[in-house]
Amino acid sequence: MRIEIVAVGTELLLGQIADTNSQWLGEHLAALGVASHFHQAVGDNHDRIVLALRTALARSDGIIVCGGLGPTHDDITRDAIAEVMNVPLVRDEDVVAKIRTMFSSRGREMPESNLRQADVPNGAAIIVQTKGTAPGLICPVGHKVVYAVPGVPYEMSDMFERAIAPDLQKRMAERGEIEGTIVSRVIRTWGMSESGLGETLAEYIATQDDDAAAGTVAGTATVAFLASGIEGIKVRVTVRSADEDTAMALLDEHEAEVRAILTAAAGDVVFGIDDEAIEDAVARALATDGLTLGLAESLTGGLAASRLVNVPGASSWFRGSVVSYASEVKFDVLGVPVGPVVSEDAARAMADGARRVLGSDVGLSITGVAGPAEQDGQPVGTVFVGLARPGHDTEAFGFNVPGDRARVRQYATIAALDLLRRNLG
Amino acid sequence: MRIEIVAVGTELLLGQIADTNSQWLGEHLAALGVASHFHQAVGDNHDRIVLALRTALARSDGIIVCGGLGPTHDDITRDAIAEVMNVPLVRDEDVVAKIRTMFSSRGREMPESNLRQADVPNGAAIIVQTKGTAPGLICPVGHKVVYAVPGVPYEMSDMFERAIAPDLQKRMAERGEIEGTIVSRVIRTWGMSESGLGETLAEYIATQDDDAAAGTVAGTATVAFLASGIEGIKVRVTVRSADEDTAMALLDEHEAEVRAILTAAAGDVVFGIDDEAIEDAVARALATDGLTLGLAESLTGGLAASRLVNVPGASSWFRGSVVSYASEVKFDVLGVPVGPVVSEDAARAMADGARRVLGSDVGLSITGVAGPAEQDGQPVGTVFVGLARPGHDTEAFGFNVPGDRARVRQYATIAALDLLRRNLG
Repeated sequence: MRIEIVAVGTELLLGQIADTNSQWLGEHLAALGVASHFHQAVGDNHDRIVLALRTALARSDGIIVCGGLGPTHDDITRDAIAEVMNVPLVRDEDVVAKIRTMFSSRGREMPESNLRQADVPNGAAIIVQTKGTAPGLICPVGHKVVYAVPGVPYEMSDMFERAIAPDLQKRMAERGEIEGTIVSRVIRTWGMSESGLGETLAEYIATQDDDAAAGTVAGTATVAFLASGIEGIKVRVTVRSADEDTAMALLDEHEAEVRAILTAAAGDVVFGIDDEAIEDAVARALATDGLTLGLAESLTGGLAASRLVNVPGASSWFRGSVVSYASEVKFDVLGVPVGPVVSEDAARAMADGARRVLGSDVGLSITGVAGPAEQDGQPVGTVFVGLARPGHDTEAFGFNVPGDRARVRQYATIAALDLLRRNLG
Repeated sequence: MRIEIVAVGTELLLGQIADTNSQWLGEHLAALGVASHFHQAVGDNHDRIVLALRTALARSDGIIVCGGLGPTHDDITRDAIAEVMNVPLVRDEDVVAKIRTMFSSRGREMPESNLRQADVPNGAAIIVQTKGTAPGLICPVGHKVVYAVPGVPYEMSDMFERAIAPDLQKRMAERGEIEGTIVSRVIRTWGMSESGLGETLAEYIATQDDDAAAGTVAGTATVAFLASGIEGIKVRVTVRSADEDTAMALLDEHEAEVRAILTAAAGDVVFGIDDEAIEDAVARALATDGLTLGLAESLTGGLAASRLVNVPGASSWFRGSVVSYASEVKFDVLGVPVGPVVSEDAARAMADGARRVLGSDVGLSITGVAGPAEQDGQPVGTVFVGLARPGHDTEAFGFNVPGDRARVRQYATIAALDLLRRNLG
């Protein structure tokens, strides 16, 4: 089953918004084992939408067309589908009643233009709308199919999961096609470069069958790398299998192998899986040790604190942060000795100060040079991290990170939180 | 001149990455006045790339194909273009020499596979690579053209601006087509809802010619609204004109009109234009008054501080922030009286405390409930902002914002910084 995605909207062509719907649909079609060999975007123009749909029907088994179902004059996807089906639009009285009810229950007058959303190509089935006013459509075109969904992301994803995914699975079963499912897992790392990860995993990747690049051989994995700033460097492992349970078991094996290779080469570089961010790893490590945390941030200006409070329940272990951007705040509030503030000594004094001022078990500090100019004789990208904790001398760690102001801050934050994670638990 | 964008990469179809290149190219083609009626994405498959290119050539005057020019076995865009042109690939010795030099200057061995990047469809011109190893291509196909650029965003944008944009302008001049330029301006606001902005501007929008929706009438504007969290609610005004100077002058007129309408209806809601964020507006207001700023953040956990340090030169007016996430830090460090910490009294005491502890002229505080549970009897989304400044009694402002934890923090941050902006200068 090959499904082409057609996104409708002039704003997509003009680059005014990113086409996140096609990305979402591509990911979810792949998870169902549905091939999607082409995507298209087209503007709010009747003839060009018709041409895009005909092009897609010629090279695919079906289409998901996204957008252009609303009430205004430039919502013309319904008309274009009716032309491709060669049928008239028919007003659906059930949908009319539903739209009228929706307006009256909110005590609002319904503009007549809203009834355009009840016009349905003759022969199409309706995907009932639960979150907005425009219904979705399932439109037969010969032995092929055109699904139409609104462009509002949460209406689109709701209709896909509730109606389109089950319909696709039924069609695939009828065609005797169980193409299987494609699932991915992200292994998040910090401490190796992207090329270092690539070289370390080169032999493992080479043992995967070449055909895996096309996702056609069950059990083999495809591996991709993605440097993601404060989210770490991601290793994405993708496998294909007949069913999700088997695919998940395969992913478990591949994850274990990747972890073993990376650990043997570079130690504890894996900090999380999929959506687990560095702050989640820090929260786990602190909970394991039963410790509270206070920060002193100069370079990162509150960025590390703002990440830590993302973790639900952070209030049980996170005390706060002294964002000591001005040197005087370092001296007066944190008790840093007057002198260069981009230094190991300052980092240690800041960590001790954070612990004392905020009353935490652990103090973590970050100082350095974000740029554009050097400071205290240190070049842009210089970072010093201080770590104060019970039963240990206060330590400092120095390193350099690349990039502009924003990237220096991101790298410094993840590097400092990763240092903390590795020194706990 | 109609240019279709074809993005190449299986990872795009699988939704593993967003197709930001097509968005960027769409925006920049529009600015040149080049129509782009269709975009396609296709995977790393020879026959399907050929099909996508032939489909695009049939309905457009040219193509920009993006990606698949690298050195590995799945970089096959060159081969597909050669098939569409019906010519062989020829190894270009100048490009070979350039790639060899690039490797040897870095003291690295060049894998032979890199020479694939020197294979050029016979008759194509080369866009010299300045940032990576793969050159771009300008390929004649009859009286149409296929431009090929790498998928790495900064290589793509560099080649577009350096070679493709001038070539397109030359072709448009030869065709006697000056379709004009489309330019946009973003007016950033805080203080009105998206629907409130829409209603306030409804009459102004109605006076714009209907044809403006298609961008075909010079002088009329199309208006779009976009709620963007911490970036405010954006009003995007787009005009089309024969040349950029005229278009900019039109934009100036439209901006003045929109500002006048919004100011008459709701006061000082416009805080910035285009890339000017709320922190830039705060920096300007503080500089005007010659004041320094200190924060006390609870709800926002350092987010407000991390935005302020984005402003170049922030160290001249930003002292720092006390991120008092734990109540004890509010009591012990900021001197907040023991009691409910989500209250006007606490907000005032935090603002005073920030000013005192950080030694700043102005103290701004943010406390509230991010959720998931209520706190101090206050529901999720409750925000109190405190403002302490010279010559005024310390004030507190209470309001409610919608959303999950992350959105509550974003809205609280922009609301607090907007309050500060309005009360200065």
